[in-house]
Amino acid sequence: MTEETDHGRTAAAHGSRIDNYVDRYAARATGMVASEVRALFAVASRPEVVSLAGGMPYVTALPLDVVGELVADLVARRGPVALQYGSGQGDPHLREQICEVMRLEGIEAGPDDVVVTVGSQQALDLITRIFIDPGDVVLAEGPSYVGALGTFAAYQASVVHVPMDEDGLIPSALEETLTTLARMGRRVKFLYTIPNFQNPAGVTLAAERRRQVLEICQRAGVLVVEDNPYGLLGFDGEPMRALRADDPDGVVYLGSFSKTLAPGFRVGWALAPHAIRDKLVLAMESAVLSHSTFSQLAVGQYLATQPWREQIKSFRELYRERRDAMLSSLEALMPPGCAWTRPAGGFFVWMTVPEGLDSKAILPRAVAERVAFVPGTGFFSDSQGARQMRLSYCYPQPDRIREGVRRLAGVIEQEMELRATFGTGSARDHFGVDTPGPDLA
Amino acid sequence: MTEETDHGRTAAAHGSRIDNYVDRYAARATGMVASEVRALFAVASRPEVVSLAGGMPYVTALPLDVVGELVADLVARRGPVALQYGSGQGDPHLREQICEVMRLEGIEAGPDDVVVTVGSQQALDLITRIFIDPGDVVLAEGPSYVGALGTFAAYQASVVHVPMDEDGLIPSALEETLTTLARMGRRVKFLYTIPNFQNPAGVTLAAERRRQVLEICQRAGVLVVEDNPYGLLGFDGEPMRALRADDPDGVVYLGSFSKTLAPGFRVGWALAPHAIRDKLVLAMESAVLSHSTFSQLAVGQYLATQPWREQIKSFRELYRERRDAMLSSLEALMPPGCAWTRPAGGFFVWMTVPEGLDSKAILPRAVAERVAFVPGTGFFSDSQGARQMRLSYCYPQPDRIREGVRRLAGVIEQEMELRATFGTGSARDHFGVDTPGPDLA
Repeated sequence: MTEETDHGRTAAAHGSRIDNYVDRYAARATGMVASEVRALFAVASRPEVVSLAGGMPYVTALPLDVVGELVADLVARRGPVALQYGSGQGDPHLREQICEVMRLEGIEAGPDDVVVTVGSQQALDLITRIFIDPGDVVLAEGPSYVGALGTFAAYQASVVHVPMDEDGLIPSALEETLTTLARMGRRVKFLYTIPNFQNPAGVTLAAERRRQVLEICQRAGVLVVEDNPYGLLGFDGEPMRALRADDPDGVVYLGSFSKTLAPGFRVGWALAPHAIRDKLVLAMESAVLSHSTFSQLAVGQYLATQPWREQIKSFRELYRERRDAMLSSLEALMPPGCAWTRPAGGFFVWMTVPEGLDSKAILPRAVAERVAFVPGTGFFSDSQGARQMRLSYCYPQPDRIREGVRRLAGVIEQEMELRATFGTGSARDHFGVDTPGPDLA
Repeated sequence: MTEETDHGRTAAAHGSRIDNYVDRYAARATGMVASEVRALFAVASRPEVVSLAGGMPYVTALPLDVVGELVADLVARRGPVALQYGSGQGDPHLREQICEVMRLEGIEAGPDDVVVTVGSQQALDLITRIFIDPGDVVLAEGPSYVGALGTFAAYQASVVHVPMDEDGLIPSALEETLTTLARMGRRVKFLYTIPNFQNPAGVTLAAERRRQVLEICQRAGVLVVEDNPYGLLGFDGEPMRALRADDPDGVVYLGSFSKTLAPGFRVGWALAPHAIRDKLVLAMESAVLSHSTFSQLAVGQYLATQPWREQIKSFRELYRERRDAMLSSLEALMPPGCAWTRPAGGFFVWMTVPEGLDSKAILPRAVAERVAFVPGTGFFSDSQGARQMRLSYCYPQPDRIREGVRRLAGVIEQEMELRATFGTGSARDHFGVDTPGPDLA
């Protein structure tokens, strides 16, 4: 990061940082602003800081030598294909393999309905590009994935949050929200939902609610966008049945190899009803021509030659141990008045601090005490989240997680004491969406 | 392709192809339609057809074993980085290497001003996303790169073409166009230009015109987007000096490793003035979070360990031989009344057929005679190009090029005879932009 900063300084010394183009950007560009907590996270990436902020999977657990060899083999044997342009829809064989992966969640689909994308983030971008005119409404859980909110904002969508409880999205709240919006004459284009081990809330949509959510959306003519990067990383029993498994025409399903293999390949996908699939391919070609054949075939080769189900199982064990470390230390160390969710899979715990405290105001002090988290406000498009924070357990080792929670508990206790002494803290409203750095996804 | 078609049929048999979402797409999606010549190109990919259509580089010329080994080494040694999320701006070391590559064209820039993108196509997409509101004008050479026209259409830009001659974009025509548009009160956001070995015209902007183009755009307050994928693939002498080299504040430069190394990595970049660079990074993160670290580090490793300048030299020799094969056989075989450009680098010749002939009407007959090309209409946003076609010499061997030109000359002769016998052919107007398949880029 030092290097980066130095370059920045050099450039500033040479040229002007005044924006000559300020009156020439598109309207959508005015919503593109860097998160105010970014600078802090640059500090938080120092090794002495325990980062409970990032959503980075623990790729060190992969058999790196084996992956290296299979990639070498791929280039030597199939180089003229692997290094060439590919089709906009993605490699046909990989799309078949993707269908096999989705079968684990009850999805029956053919490779013709799959579009391979640059991570599922690009699938989100393309689906928004296809459906959203400025001012259209997107429904999303509150809180929701910060990268999705950033994309919706970039297309000038209006995000309306639907509340969750420990069983995920609340169907009656969804119904009420739709009724209210219909009465207001607002156009709802889709519901964006992360049903399993939600980012950031860590909760899972209960089985009986899945049918209800589908029925409500069908009745209202609202498409469901099901984002499911963590579905195979559950700690108890079999994977949940995907929403898409019960409504092939009403759901666009987004999947990813970023958490079950590695994010460095940037291979995700969308499974969509036929007509939408056609538009997605055209949007894909207009956006990037085609995804990296090299990356796609590397993932395909891995799936074809390696025991990938076993690898996912070992990731599950790894993350379960870290989840346990986090929950037990939260239980042991957090002061009274703090509450948190108990994820049954995935990467994240969502914590609420006592009234009067502001998680964004706490962050600089936490970083000074060598622990980092993501403040809750970034996960909402409105002013919610000031008392919340996302704690991730995916990347640090269990003892580091315990140490991080210990440091954080100390900071929160100090804040509570200050508040008891000097009165209510500086809880601030939050406006706009912070665009996340990729390490915070 | 057979496999693809079969899946398509299966899906059609199972589900409905009726578009339930037809009234729910965004306004921009109505412009997303597949090219009508796509089906033909599926046929044209058969081995017995000589394709002068595709823009695929000849990656078989690369030392594939060596590339395979360096990638294996990369994953084994630096796997935890190569397989992880990266920064939205791109790998810092690769950005330094990119600056070294650009120095060959007279560009002095620091890595802080570079954003690594998913091919230069994504750079085009992001720059359009940042600058274009529906109805804004983009100036582009006529003809211009079909993939750029598709992207501009996806953002509902209004493309106005500026004519070229054998020395590239005509400065006086640029000036006139700007004056006319100013009089009409139209907002011109940028000039999109491919100065070297233009796609599809094969012409190069003369050195003395470069200053003039920059001055005209500076005066009019119009940003220049310089797209330069072929700049290092010139057949005579040193690379031309980039427009960006003489105007760091007024030019966004787009580069790519797709033609100098391999497109399968999808590594391109944008070099932009500081304020625009900031927006590009935010747009990049919102679109895909970050590009594949695996791809980026593979390219970086190649540049660091292989004689890449020598490799570019050998690509130049290879393409020069193919250009020569095409020009000499066009000279020997084409009937009178045909005219074509004489590229000094790059991949493409632009041919004009005699009056009364229509290149799109000729294509099915050409494919029946086992030769393919891209009709000219796709390279314009208006109704121009009916008498033109793009012939590429990058991919087939020289003897195949000669055979392809022989077949094409036969088809054109037949068409001319038909026309002489039955009168004027069916020259049609063309509306809208065809979105290209990636293989036609």
